[in-house]
Amino acid sequence: MPDQGNTRYEQLADEMAQAMRDGLLQAGERLPSVRQTCQRRGVSPSTVFQAYGLLETRGLIDARPRSGYYVRAQKRSARALPQLAPPRTEATAVAVSALAFELLESTRDPAVVPLGSAFPAAHLFPFDALARSGARAMRRVKPAQITGALTAGDAALRQALRRRYTLQGVPLAEDELVITNGAMEALNLCLQAVTVPGDVVVVESPTFYAALQALERLNLKAVEVATDPQEGVDLAALAELLARQKVAACWFMPTLQNPLGALMPSARKQALVALLARHGVPLIEDDVYGELYADVRRPPPAKAFDQAGGVLHCASFSKCLAPGYRVGWAAAGRYAPLVQRLKMMTSLATALPPQLAIADYLAQGGYDRHLRRLRAELAGEQQRARRLIERHFPAGTRVSRPAGGYFLWLELPPAVDALALHHRAMALGISTAPGVLFSADRRFVHHLRLNVGHPGDARVDDALRRLGELAIAELAAVR
Amino acid sequence: MPDQGNTRYEQLADEMAQAMRDGLLQAGERLPSVRQTCQRRGVSPSTVFQAYGLLETRGLIDARPRSGYYVRAQKRSARALPQLAPPRTEATAVAVSALAFELLESTRDPAVVPLGSAFPAAHLFPFDALARSGARAMRRVKPAQITGALTAGDAALRQALRRRYTLQGVPLAEDELVITNGAMEALNLCLQAVTVPGDVVVVESPTFYAALQALERLNLKAVEVATDPQEGVDLAALAELLARQKVAACWFMPTLQNPLGALMPSARKQALVALLARHGVPLIEDDVYGELYADVRRPPPAKAFDQAGGVLHCASFSKCLAPGYRVGWAAAGRYAPLVQRLKMMTSLATALPPQLAIADYLAQGGYDRHLRRLRAELAGEQQRARRLIERHFPAGTRVSRPAGGYFLWLELPPAVDALALHHRAMALGISTAPGVLFSADRRFVHHLRLNVGHPGDARVDDALRRLGELAIAELAAVR
Repeated sequence: MPDQGNTRYEQLADEMAQAMRDGLLQAGERLPSVRQTCQRRGVSPSTVFQAYGLLETRGLIDARPRSGYYVRAQKRSARALPQLAPPRTEATAVAVSALAFELLESTRDPAVVPLGSAFPAAHLFPFDALARSGARAMRRVKPAQITGALTAGDAALRQALRRRYTLQGVPLAEDELVITNGAMEALNLCLQAVTVPGDVVVVESPTFYAALQALERLNLKAVEVATDPQEGVDLAALAELLARQKVAACWFMPTLQNPLGALMPSARKQALVALLARHGVPLIEDDVYGELYADVRRPPPAKAFDQAGGVLHCASFSKCLAPGYRVGWAAAGRYAPLVQRLKMMTSLATALPPQLAIADYLAQGGYDRHLRRLRAELAGEQQRARRLIERHFPAGTRVSRPAGGYFLWLELPPAVDALALHHRAMALGISTAPGVLFSADRRFVHHLRLNVGHPGDARVDDALRRLGELAIAELAAVR
Repeated sequence: MPDQGNTRYEQLADEMAQAMRDGLLQAGERLPSVRQTCQRRGVSPSTVFQAYGLLETRGLIDARPRSGYYVRAQKRSARALPQLAPPRTEATAVAVSALAFELLESTRDPAVVPLGSAFPAAHLFPFDALARSGARAMRRVKPAQITGALTAGDAALRQALRRRYTLQGVPLAEDELVITNGAMEALNLCLQAVTVPGDVVVVESPTFYAALQALERLNLKAVEVATDPQEGVDLAALAELLARQKVAACWFMPTLQNPLGALMPSARKQALVALLARHGVPLIEDDVYGELYADVRRPPPAKAFDQAGGVLHCASFSKCLAPGYRVGWAAAGRYAPLVQRLKMMTSLATALPPQLAIADYLAQGGYDRHLRRLRAELAGEQQRARRLIERHFPAGTRVSRPAGGYFLWLELPPAVDALALHHRAMALGISTAPGVLFSADRRFVHHLRLNVGHPGDARVDDALRRLGELAIAELAAVR
């Protein structure tokens, strides 16, 4: 899965980041000087300066004046990761939506610091370029093309998407893609394609509340499987569950899981797909954060390992290019014809103007450049936010260390009621996403998901500090 | 319910059309001369010429050179109306979607004469003006407004819609409107809001196949109630049904029903709403053709008579302004909060660019002018098509006489298999919508819905002639 179009300096930065992860460059170690690196790698000084600048932005190295660049300690021991939490294993009827709805509505106010929001800062997206693309595309389109908009979506957009999949090592069948009203619709259609009311569906624990809402809406039962903040779903627990009970489907986010940020290693993704294939259980793969990796290259989706057409891969442009345009898709494997039919029944077709705008934008060729900038900004801001949380939150707070995206998952000391904390923070004009949202049985009561995708928002530092103070005050009150 | 913004000549034409319906101006009678009408009404000759031109376009009068204008015979007796067909009254599990899907896909080819299509001709819609509005709106919008797109939809668009409802005599509660991905999504959300799997829902007979598909998707049972081609649902049969069995909801199109074109008179709409309120049964009112009336003014929706908040009114811009933009809405009465929550769960929000384009277009003020032109074109083409059908189809063919829209419903002689006819016509490059699509138990086997919303398409005359010949040939073969 080659990463297309990376510049020389990005490649260099990625290689050095990998060397740090592999322990070849250790915390506190001085990096080779710019001059040395130029000589060794046969690159220009400006390439090295840009690479070091990128590593600094990502929080991986520090520049010390008149001394050089040093590998930053990632303080793996200073803050422990949140713990894997084994959930109840019996199926649960789902009813989380009232709370989710109330909380989401409460974060709409632009005056509120959006740490509970689901989207990164608006200024990170190329809305002007998209608007120009939209205007150009709509001037050019023929009326008959508009009235004849296909259920499966605009042909040029599907072609462009299929090309990206292929370049990422995931060949798709010609008619496999269906464009949807955001990934949310894709996920809902896929879920309906593989279940009937009363069925049991396995989700991660914690899991994205929209998955729980979708199950609730379709009268399905959820079984939660423990999910490690780094490694993703516990495969042993899943295998045991599949041996014990009839399961209609799994709905997982193997890449940059929401809320944990877990990135399942490729070997584990492959094992997951093989395990589910043995049991004939389809995998609904929610991959909306896949483009926001902080790693060297895009992690392959589980879909890349699918031989049997059992993986229904869902994604969108809403988190990485065009929020509000509601352009998502499903590559639904052997379920594709059924998903397309359900799409026709549910909403006939997806709006054409946003599809044409994005297809034109992709054809202009700026998408990968935009993504590289976006990844670097989010990675830098994540580092910054983690440092602030370490400074301001009570001792014993555990923080996730996701390999991309823009969420941090906090496990506060058990005495902190995160829902109460959320309400107190809202009164101060700060939203959060309390942990109870992320489980059907309202576990994760002392957990918070924080959106740290707002680089440049001057209110964030103060908001994190005040959140930490609220948590400390609550701890003091119960002691 | 005053019709806003009608010009003087349109008012004059409407008054004369009403006089014809009331029998005050009889078939064959000569209209007052232009000079006489100028004097009597105190209007200019050009106003009278325009009014007479409009009546001619609508097929209501004929111009005879050097003689004047004459009321055209509407040949009520030449072709009988299709008959009211009492359906089976037990609930039926629904499985019409495979056929509907296959047929719809087969009509996508632009080389096929689209008599089976669901949309009028593309040239009837102001796509250029919409594209300009879209470009202007997207240049002006703030990024935070895009990322913060609300589940309920763009505030300005909702405000404009609410204003139109109010002007049509239907005041809405402030938060009643939810913008959806076309009316199809609105109808699906409303249906889900008022049912659980296994429930019985009453539909018209014949009914729109998408209603049957929606029921199928949500594991609901359909009971069909006979629907008169002119007067709409048989209220006595409905009352009897409600007394006999538990019904979760009705899904009706009281205004320009698809496929019949029936326009339920206002008094009957009022009686329907009262009957359902007595039984506590919600009405899902599909009103997507409401703006395409051929009458003097917009017929009130059933929603206009709702006191109890039990009418969930669904409509869209897809048939009257902007196909392919997928902007619809639900005004769901007391179910509005639930519908909004289901919208969030199902697709989070509706794409913003098409909403902003339409909101800007509405603000420019050309919508009512566009609608008047569209209605006149469709009414004229319907008259033309009915004459062609009378000329070319076998004796005994009954044709609907809808009060607007762009569908004709044909009841062919019983020996004609309309599905076979459809397949033969497709082989000649002509699509139709065979009657079996419009019932869960595949009634209406010798019926066809024809789209006559393609004024100016030179292929239509020949296609109608060839369809008629195919029907005659099939009749000859079975005799």
